[in-house]
Amino acid sequence: MSDLRAQSVVAFGGGHGLFASLSALRLLVDDLTVDDLTAVVTVADNGGSSGRLRGEFGVLPPGDLRMALAALCGDDTWDVTWSRVLQHRFAGEGEMRGHVVGNLLIVSLWELLGDHVDALDWIGRLLGAKGRVLPMALTPMVITAEVAGLLDDPDELVTVRGQVEVAITSGSISSIALEPADPTVCPQALEAIHAADWMVLGPGSWFTSVIPHLMIPALREAIVTSVARLIVVLNLEEQPGETHGLGPGDHLAALIVHAPDLAPAVVLADARCIGDEAAALERTVASYGARLVLADVMADDGTPRHDPAKLAAAYAHIMSGD
Amino acid sequence: MSDLRAQSVVAFGGGHGLFASLSALRLLVDDLTVDDLTAVVTVADNGGSSGRLRGEFGVLPPGDLRMALAALCGDDTWDVTWSRVLQHRFAGEGEMRGHVVGNLLIVSLWELLGDHVDALDWIGRLLGAKGRVLPMALTPMVITAEVAGLLDDPDELVTVRGQVEVAITSGSISSIALEPADPTVCPQALEAIHAADWMVLGPGSWFTSVIPHLMIPALREAIVTSVARLIVVLNLEEQPGETHGLGPGDHLAALIVHAPDLAPAVVLADARCIGDEAAALERTVASYGARLVLADVMADDGTPRHDPAKLAAAYAHIMSGD
Repeated sequence: MSDLRAQSVVAFGGGHGLFASLSALRLLVDDLTVDDLTAVVTVADNGGSSGRLRGEFGVLPPGDLRMALAALCGDDTWDVTWSRVLQHRFAGEGEMRGHVVGNLLIVSLWELLGDHVDALDWIGRLLGAKGRVLPMALTPMVITAEVAGLLDDPDELVTVRGQVEVAITSGSISSIALEPADPTVCPQALEAIHAADWMVLGPGSWFTSVIPHLMIPALREAIVTSVARLIVVLNLEEQPGETHGLGPGDHLAALIVHAPDLAPAVVLADARCIGDEAAALERTVASYGARLVLADVMADDGTPRHDPAKLAAAYAHIMSGD
Repeated sequence: MSDLRAQSVVAFGGGHGLFASLSALRLLVDDLTVDDLTAVVTVADNGGSSGRLRGEFGVLPPGDLRMALAALCGDDTWDVTWSRVLQHRFAGEGEMRGHVVGNLLIVSLWELLGDHVDALDWIGRLLGAKGRVLPMALTPMVITAEVAGLLDDPDELVTVRGQVEVAITSGSISSIALEPADPTVCPQALEAIHAADWMVLGPGSWFTSVIPHLMIPALREAIVTSVARLIVVLNLEEQPGETHGLGPGDHLAALIVHAPDLAPAVVLADARCIGDEAAALERTVASYGARLVLADVMADDGTPRHDPAKLAAAYAHIMSGD
């Protein structure tokens, strides 16, 4: 039976994966399927413009927050222009090279207003954003990973530190952890989870953008105890480095290893990507008490990225309870 | 007889002097004395954040444009908050130190939109600005000065290059020039001058922010042939370096040396600053065909800066024709 009430949704992730998910969810805000949309974003990036700003000012890395805001920007010329400004990256060969204007704007608002969420809300208003963007924690985080396959003894684990370093490791990631282990969670993120009908985890860099949300005790506790149903969105392909050699079932297993009490309601995967493995994946998903939904969510041009309209249709289908 | 029609005003300058003038003129927009306000801003700065961006990207130095926009920002919380962001300067000890957020925003809009004026208009709309801010030229300019007193022969002239270098010279400036000598003038600035009732020149760094407007052939031609009446606003004190030893009459003389056909209608000076020299200054002003207006325009705390409300009252008095 369809649930006609508009839904409240919290999406977890970071980087391009969260951008894709929000690009779909914004369409559900437009058609009134979703009336309350919150993005909760990883704050462990240590590379690029974000890493430089984090190093210089000791702030949260702003890049993933900026990308999430840009994904949610409104439709009129005003919103789109300021979103382009937000996403503008300086070229050239000088000191500004690689810095992104939105990162600098966010850091300056943090300095001026002294409040992470207030500052992000200001950017959201500038862009006419169709949802709220929150950091997962109010402390810059460091990701560490236990990685096998880097030493003569292929089973011996090495600790790799830093999101960039973990993402490109040539070894096999066994587990990740965060430092500090128990940071201050963004209270508005906990409130949003408490009030949500649905939570969306993934797609995205599995160990460095998706799983970190499950490694913060207060955030994991809120997620696993929430009455909101959890949709896990699988990636369209494995990522060189971070998830090399991991199949769809392995991705799910990695989630559960990090959060044994996690209970996904739905696992969403692209039908073409799964192909012959559908039956096996369905058994794996069922073993975690969840339902597998296979849908056409990949871009028509065959590149391994989610098509916003197709992903939105899949979300709408799941949320309608059909 | 009072002229009750709202006035159209173009203010020329740069830096803190133009900021002071615009902070006064915006009050006349509020009380409907002025209905059309345009700032035409020097683009010869080579120091600080502006100088770094100019060196890195070959763009117009954005700093004086940014300050003029901030001076004109609207009154509500939205306008004031974005104006504070615009004016925010990064501290710390890293690569961003000294950069001002608004400078980076302006440069990014130039890169994105490819049009100087369009980009500045976008910032103006963001701030709810009470007037338009335009660059005096569409080419980054270099100020050079012929300076005496730097060599053994005190009359021998040395060419000093660069706004920063000219502003702090220990010698005595004989004249300035601009490179390139005949840049592309901003067409909207010429239109504004053509449509103006009043032009305001000064206060500000006399050789590096005020006189440069008279050194661009097309701009000087527009100013001297305009039917708009010209108000020259004298500084409250001499500036160390650039105008050391120059009295109020010398400031006027310096203007006329650079633009012999300039015909000010009114010269506005602070009564207290002029003091005993009023009669002499009045004769000098009259010799240029202008009228001297002495008014109380200095801040009450005795610091040598213009009080916006007092300066506004003086402007209103002059423009009312009383």
